[in-house]
Formats: sequence, structure tokens, C-alpha cells
Amino acid sequence: MTLSHVKLTAADQDALRACAHAMADAARGAILPLFRTGLVSDNKDAGGFDPVTEADRAAELAMRAIVATLRPDDAILGEEFGETSGTTGLQWVLDPIDGTRGFISGTPTWGVLVSVRDVSGVLYGLIDQPYIGERFEGGFGIADMTGPQGAAPLRTSATETLAQATILTTFPEVGTVQDGAAFREVATKCKLTRYGMDCYGYALLALGQVDLVIEAGLSAYDIQAPIAVVHAAGGIVTDWQGGPAHEGGRALAAANATLHAQALKILASL
Amino acid sequence: MTLSHVKLTAADQDALRACAHAMADAARGAILPLFRTGLVSDNKDAGGFDPVTEADRAAELAMRAIVATLRPDDAILGEEFGETSGTTGLQWVLDPIDGTRGFISGTPTWGVLVSVRDVSGVLYGLIDQPYIGERFEGGFGIADMTGPQGAAPLRTSATETLAQATILTTFPEVGTVQDGAAFREVATKCKLTRYGMDCYGYALLALGQVDLVIEAGLSAYDIQAPIAVVHAAGGIVTDWQGGPAHEGGRALAAANATLHAQALKILASL
Repeated sequence: MTLSHVKLTAADQDALRACAHAMADAARGAILPLFRTGLVSDNKDAGGFDPVTEADRAAELAMRAIVATLRPDDAILGEEFGETSGTTGLQWVLDPIDGTRGFISGTPTWGVLVSVRDVSGVLYGLIDQPYIGERFEGGFGIADMTGPQGAAPLRTSATETLAQATILTTFPEVGTVQDGAAFREVATKCKLTRYGMDCYGYALLALGQVDLVIEAGLSAYDIQAPIAVVHAAGGIVTDWQGGPAHEGGRALAAANATLHAQALKILASL
Repeated sequence: MTLSHVKLTAADQDALRACAHAMADAARGAILPLFRTGLVSDNKDAGGFDPVTEADRAAELAMRAIVATLRPDDAILGEEFGETSGTTGLQWVLDPIDGTRGFISGTPTWGVLVSVRDVSGVLYGLIDQPYIGERFEGGFGIADMTGPQGAAPLRTSATETLAQATILTTFPEVGTVQDGAAFREVATKCKLTRYGMDCYGYALLALGQVDLVIEAGLSAYDIQAPIAVVHAAGGIVTDWQGGPAHEGGRALAAANATLHAQALKILASL
């Protein structure tokens, strides 16, 4: 069994943070030379369109090399290279490029996702946008971002009604036909609906700029770092029934409990 | 009559470029302190949702002050403060924040649009993204961008079939119900459809990262700077009948003539 309950000292937390930042730095170095070059290595899903770039692989290898050096006994789950077992009870969960469609379209809203969990769930995470040079950090008592305008605390919005809320999802179709219909049930009650931000949407939620993010068809590595960042900023992330979302599937991320309850009532009834 | 045919020397062009860059710099200075602060000043369209921020007004005033100093005899058309007449035959066309919905959602894909035209159409334009620090420039023989990774030439893609193309629009509904249906007629033939980029979509087209941008319901100030940048990079922008798009309305922007013809055939037949 890779995961267990792990008791972390302040020094342990600092070491995990240092490792996470080093991993995100390494991923930036691996990805940026390949961003907007047009290189696309192959296609995981020949039926649909789920490209994996050389950058995706290079970044995960660069992050795994950091773990091998700094935290060789931790386990790893990565989008590109799967699971590596460990002995500490902790697992790094990595998505080297979340939003590969955005990446190959040149948009600056894909991100590098780095998180660490024990058996109880995700403990700490980073959402990094290398091109802009923005990093969103949540967990171990920290909820902060750094970017081109400097550093700022993360704090979700106080918006308490759907009628005042901005809602975000990546694709208008969301997931299955049912998923899309459920999203629209909520979205039609909101003030503003926006699309296309990939993991950057969760960063905007943590920044207090949007109020709800609803997605479906997620994998564990898509959602664990966002959960850490959104929770640290005061938000709530669950599945569409109010249960844990950290293994992926459908996610409802809300700025606060009041707004979460209103969206959940709609999604859970469908 | 404000506009006429204007013969520009190289020195004239340099002066216009210097003025445009000074305007975009001034707009950055006016807007960035207000980005992600949550300030929204009022609502132009009480029935829908078309917010205008303090930043929008401050940026247009800052740009108008630059014109008053450097080019006092040129005319101005700005989104916020309308028309100011001039005597040179040239008109500056300004959208201080294109993508106000994106701006108030905290996304980094709104932009400052600056362009200059004579009676024949737009001569030169800038798309500026202040938060990222990116500027896309087209006209007077120039097609370049500068950003966090340095400078690069702009060149549209060589993608020649819809089946290989990435298509982009800002809202899934596009414009009217008919506009949306027409967009989907083209989009369903494309490889990948993306949403939500506002004016940044035209920058991505000029960068060769996406292949088609189709929009409707545009104003002159929304499209003139994008036309200058896309044309300079080798692309084509027309309305949905193949005519000029610089007064706004419906726009079809394509990476090259071959791709433009395929999309136009569909749009013009509807």
C-alpha cells in the first residue's frame, strides 16, 4: 500500500514545499522552449483529440528527476508515466501540462500541476503557468500567488448567490450530454459564463475573480493541485453529489459554502 | 470629412508607431493597478451584461492624452468617449479594454487595441496584453511580437484544410442564433474548437497557433487593430461575405487564402 496517514512536522512541510517549487521550476525550463513551436509528438486518443506534446513528457521527466533527488522515497503518480511506488506514505501527483489543447493553441491558460497527498487526500498543491510566470500555491497554511505584478494572497470571493456569480468551465459540452445539460442548468442561473481556461480557472477561483468552476471527465492528476489551492483560499471542491472529488470525475468548485450549496442542489438533483 | 487618403513617408510611419507604442504603454499603466481588484464601475447594458470598468475609461483618457501631445491633429474614435475630429485625414481607433468580460473574470486574454486608419482602411495596429506583457504589432512592413520570452516575428500558419484547423471564437453562441449556427457549420469540420480568448485569438492567429477566428456582433474598434496584425502576419480578415470587415459586424479571420476560401464558402452560403 503506497499511501498512509502521514504526520508532518513544519520541517517536513518546508521540505515538501521546496521540492514542489523545484519541480515546477524544472517543468518551466522543460516546457517553455517548446511552447508555441508547433511540435506535437503524437495523439493518445486517435478517435478524439488528446495530443501529448514533447513538452508534456520532458516536463514530467524533469519533475521526476527532482523527486528522485530530493524525495526518493515518496511515491509518484504522473499523467505521462504512471505510478512509481514509495515508502513514506506520501505520493506526488503530477500533470506536467494540464490543458494540452490550450497549449497547442498557444493560449496562456494551461498549467503545470504539482501536488502531494497522503491517504486522507491532497495536502498541498501548486498551479503554475510558466509563460506568464504565475504560480498559485495552497496548503500547509499557505494560500498565495506570485506573478508578473508580484505576490498576493489567495482568497475566494464572498459572492453568495448564483445570480451574482461568474461560472467557468473549459468546454461548452463539459463532458457527456448529461454533464453538459447539468452544467447549463447551473450556468443559466448565473450572471456570467466563461469558457476555455483549463486549470487556470481554479486559479481564478482562488483569486476571487470567478465564483464557480464546474467540470466533468477529470482524472486525479487534473484536480488534486486545484483542490489544494482552492481549499487553501477558502473555497470548496466536491463531486456533483457533495462527496470527495480528488480521484477525478465530476468536480464542483465554489468560492464558499453558500454558493456551493446552491450549485450542488441543482447538480445533485439531476 | 475626417478621413482621407494619406500618403505617409517613412518618418510619418515612425512617428505613428512611436505614438501607438506610447499609447499602449500609457494604457498598461492605467489598467494594471485596477486589474483583479474587483472594481466594476457601471453597466452599459442593463438588460445584458456589458460591464465597463474604471480601467477602461482611465486607459482611453491616458491614450487620448498621448494623441493630444504627439499627434494633436489626428482624429480619434474610442470605445468609451466616441469621436474626436481631426485634420490630417488619419483616425486613431481605440478599444482600451477589448474583452471586458474576460477582464472582470481575471483572465489574461483581454487586450488594449490601438490602430490608425485613413479612408482606405486600417494601416497599422497593436494588440497589447498588459498583464502578460505581450504586444503584437502589424503594419508599415512590420509583423512582430514582444513578450515575456522576448521578441518573435508574426507569421500565420500554412494549415490548408478545415480538417487540420484549430478554430476559435469568444462565446459558443457567437452572436445571433443564425450566427451561432453558421459558426458551428464551420467548426464541426475543424480539428479543434476553442473558446474565450477575446482579441487574444487574433494574436494567436498571427502567431500561427490557431488557424481561424470567426466572430459576430463586432464594432469597428474591436476589429481594426486585429485586422492590421493578422494582415501583416500573412492572414486574411473579411466579413462573412468576403467584403471588408473593418467597420465591425461579422468577421472571418483566416491564416491564409486557401483556408479562408473554405470557411467563406460555408458562411456565405448560409
